Amino acid sequence: MNYPIVLRLLGMVSWLMGATMLGSVPWAFPWFGQAEHIEWQGLIALAGSIAGCVVLGGVFRYLGRGANVSIYRREAMAVVGLSWVLATALGALPYLFSHSSIAWADYDSGQRRLMNVADCLFESQSGFSTTGATVLTDIEDPLLLPRCILFWRCSTHFLGGLGIIVLFVAVLGQGSAGKALMRAEIPGPSKEGSQERMQHTAWTFAAIYCALNLVLAVLLKIEGMNWFDAICHAFGTMATGGFSTYNASLGYFNSAAIDYTVLVFMIIAGMNFTLIYLVTVGRGAIMLRDVEWRSYMAIILGGSLLLGVISVYLYEDFDREGVLSDASEAISAARYVPFTFVSILTTTGFGTHDFDQWNQFGRAMLFLLMFVGGCAGSTGGGMKVIRHVLFVKILRLEIEHSFHPNVVRHLRLGGVPIPDPELRRAILLYFGLVTFLFMFSWILLVGLEPDATWTEHNQPLQNKLIDSASAVAATLNNIGPGLGTVGATQNYSAFSSFAKLLFVLLMMLGRLELFPVLVLGMPSFWRSK
Amino acid sequence: MNYPIVLRLLGMVSWLMGATMLGSVPWAFPWFGQAEHIEWQGLIALAGSIAGCVVLGGVFRYLGRGANVSIYRREAMAVVGLSWVLATALGALPYLFSHSSIAWADYDSGQRRLMNVADCLFESQSGFSTTGATVLTDIEDPLLLPRCILFWRCSTHFLGGLGIIVLFVAVLGQGSAGKALMRAEIPGPSKEGSQERMQHTAWTFAAIYCALNLVLAVLLKIEGMNWFDAICHAFGTMATGGFSTYNASLGYFNSAAIDYTVLVFMIIAGMNFTLIYLVTVGRGAIMLRDVEWRSYMAIILGGSLLLGVISVYLYEDFDREGVLSDASEAISAARYVPFTFVSILTTTGFGTHDFDQWNQFGRAMLFLLMFVGGCAGSTGGGMKVIRHVLFVKILRLEIEHSFHPNVVRHLRLGGVPIPDPELRRAILLYFGLVTFLFMFSWILLVGLEPDATWTEHNQPLQNKLIDSASAVAATLNNIGPGLGTVGATQNYSAFSSFAKLLFVLLMMLGRLELFPVLVLGMPSFWRSK
Repeated sequence: MNYPIVLRLLGMVSWLMGATMLGSVPWAFPWFGQAEHIEWQGLIALAGSIAGCVVLGGVFRYLGRGANVSIYRREAMAVVGLSWVLATALGALPYLFSHSSIAWADYDSGQRRLMNVADCLFESQSGFSTTGATVLTDIEDPLLLPRCILFWRCSTHFLGGLGIIVLFVAVLGQGSAGKALMRAEIPGPSKEGSQERMQHTAWTFAAIYCALNLVLAVLLKIEGMNWFDAICHAFGTMATGGFSTYNASLGYFNSAAIDYTVLVFMIIAGMNFTLIYLVTVGRGAIMLRDVEWRSYMAIILGGSLLLGVISVYLYEDFDREGVLSDASEAISAARYVPFTFVSILTTTGFGTHDFDQWNQFGRAMLFLLMFVGGCAGSTGGGMKVIRHVLFVKILRLEIEHSFHPNVVRHLRLGGVPIPDPELRRAILLYFGLVTFLFMFSWILLVGLEPDATWTEHNQPLQNKLIDSASAVAATLNNIGPGLGTVGATQNYSAFSSFAKLLFVLLMMLGRLELFPVLVLGMPSFWRSK
Repeated sequence: MNYPIVLRLLGMVSWLMGATMLGSVPWAFPWFGQAEHIEWQGLIALAGSIAGCVVLGGVFRYLGRGANVSIYRREAMAVVGLSWVLATALGALPYLFSHSSIAWADYDSGQRRLMNVADCLFESQSGFSTTGATVLTDIEDPLLLPRCILFWRCSTHFLGGLGIIVLFVAVLGQGSAGKALMRAEIPGPSKEGSQERMQHTAWTFAAIYCALNLVLAVLLKIEGMNWFDAICHAFGTMATGGFSTYNASLGYFNSAAIDYTVLVFMIIAGMNFTLIYLVTVGRGAIMLRDVEWRSYMAIILGGSLLLGVISVYLYEDFDREGVLSDASEAISAARYVPFTFVSILTTTGFGTHDFDQWNQFGRAMLFLLMFVGGCAGSTGGGMKVIRHVLFVKILRLEIEHSFHPNVVRHLRLGGVPIPDPELRRAILLYFGLVTFLFMFSWILLVGLEPDATWTEHNQPLQNKLIDSASAVAATLNNIGPGLGTVGATQNYSAFSSFAKLLFVLLMMLGRLELFPVLVLGMPSFWRSK
């Protein structure tokens, strides 16, 4: 392991963090219509955190001085894994230093329930991993959470999304799933390339990502948000994060225009960034032929339609009192069902309707949807659409293989054979790992989380199993909201610190597609060659 | 495909079914202390079913006359898969012809709720697949279920277990998981062999299986059961089935001696039959060195202890009123916890305590345990211990592979390297298939089973998701009882016919380790070469 170069790059990450924190500073001042008066506590917290980033970055760069620049697979994995650990730790500082609080513990006496270290790490990781799960129960009160810290919370999504686009998509190719495929499929930027070309790709992708954020922010401003909300919600959408600036999430605005605008941009954010790049250079036809893109759109259209029809005609989910006409119900469903479906599928997690009150089939479908996720090479989490497409094809081929053991048939994607024998094992392995991590975390959570988390918060204890399963699924797949005690109108504040740290780990595992985090726990990874 | 030989063998299965049904005839007469007077309806049903088996068998053998005896992999798979389908259909006849009934629909007017075709198929498949799930809510009333038909119900376990031992273990070598391993590990009977030797193995194994059934029946008789109950419970234990002759299952006897006897024999029934054979010929040392056997025993000891300690000291599950001393609680736990643990692990499903009332961790652990199952080459269902041992090892190796892609490390089992590259993919594939089937069946069940199954039977609707998941797990893994509406004191009667047929399919899939059933649905399987 070439430790000096790893440290050097981590130093850069520290400095980048510090630079981004600067962006939150202006909101501490009353000039932008957010803070009522200068938020000294927030400013001190930001200043302290920035100082921490700068100093730590300096130390890392000093320790890594004179590093030779040879980066192999192990160094790349270490940098990716460790920079997420580092970002989480540094990103937690503003919450901690500003005495940000979960809620008023005792409203009358003005007693605040301060975020502890686990809370801060959770909120920070949830931001960087673009999960959007929160432990905060009231984000609208500036006495609990200064406006500049609220902005920092949203910027962690922006930074996390940027990290994914630049590190995973542009530099590493498409993450582990897309890599093998893209090499064969897309005659474009992420094909083998010189270092110069790779840098060019990284800059281009970063520029497109920033431009999309800007366009969405402008649209949201036009539709009635102020700049603060518009920027924050653009960050939350394009990163498929889901942090809002209101307790009621996007439902606060109660605007169909905003809902549909965000819907369209969530769909875009869940697409492969390489394809979006190709569209911008006028080669959009490739997108229409892409198997993953077509499956993704088919899932959105087919799934929303099915769920909508069932909700309206079988269960009357949008007319519990039985007072609306069928047409009004259908209009409600057309607005809330596709939004919720896409919000969960792309792993964004914005809420406009309490889907936990929907029929049981709807709840089960949303639960499974959490594992699907966006397309490879997007900011979306989950297991990615392409893995599911390949998984089903592989199962089919292997069943045939069981009675025709001597016939070798290649995996085909869009008619093109993929002669990669490693790919089959890699896909099956990924499903195996996710299943294992999910089950293991579930039993751990059920065993170690006290029953009081349910009984003391008026949640039925018998829901512990399914609620815990949904909490694990929602963090491992970077969604945010789950079912029951972590449902659309709830949050993660009731959980113990142990559970929150478990969720921090799960969010990181999901975000980095498992391996860069898992290897950090293997002693042989650290041993020098 | 060599159809004639397949038909010929199916003809043999029909005749074997008919012959076994003869064994139920005596219990229709009052001489054995069961039936109060001659059960004419039961006798007619058995006679009709036997006639059906004989005629159908004759037709099959006629159609398959002059078959050449070449059996390849495809024919073997077809015979195994189709004979389970055939047995299920024929085994359902006695229930149907005898007008067996689920319950008194209207107790006062003597109106019976008859089993429909789906109910009969469910009960039959549950028997042959050694699942032990039931749709009958009262099996003690001879007016609802004649004693001879109750005996037939238990004999389906015996026959199913025998089928597994002879077909899967002796003839095919250890089923798909054990096959590759046993070839390398056990220097014994199932290693390559001439046809003569294979036949010899099959007979020996069948003899040991029958002997174990007999020994257990005698022990249970000594401990206070009558012969009818002793034989039926021996069938249910050695086949890891779980059908009882009482509504309260084994709990009816309320005898610690019986509980512990059955516990020991359930543990034996979950062991690899090849190892049991080796013990009988004095080579028991091989068992002690076997990795799967050691893991199996470790799971039982460690798991029961953990669950027992948590139940007693954290949740007081055996002392809900808080009146018992710690010692009495521990004695209760020592009796009920290992029994329940082993009953679920070995996929038997006998009940002595309502584990659905245990703490949530216990319920979650039992849920996961359903997927573990017994050892390969046993009558136990589930995914088998060895697959889990290999799965964890493979995940570890593959994580290492992700940062050392050029280092090839072999899978090792008990220190011996296994150089089979196909095995890794096969294990991962099996986990993938089980996950896929589980998830797919779950969403199908949640979507198509009406909410009334819960609301009209005083079960909370919010438990639909977890109850459905446990019903799928309990049938796919051949356990029997699950959680909530299919919990230890409940049964499958409330489900719709659609759900029951889905469960029939799941039980067969689980029992035959997926492939022999899955291939039946592939058109290319049936096309002649």
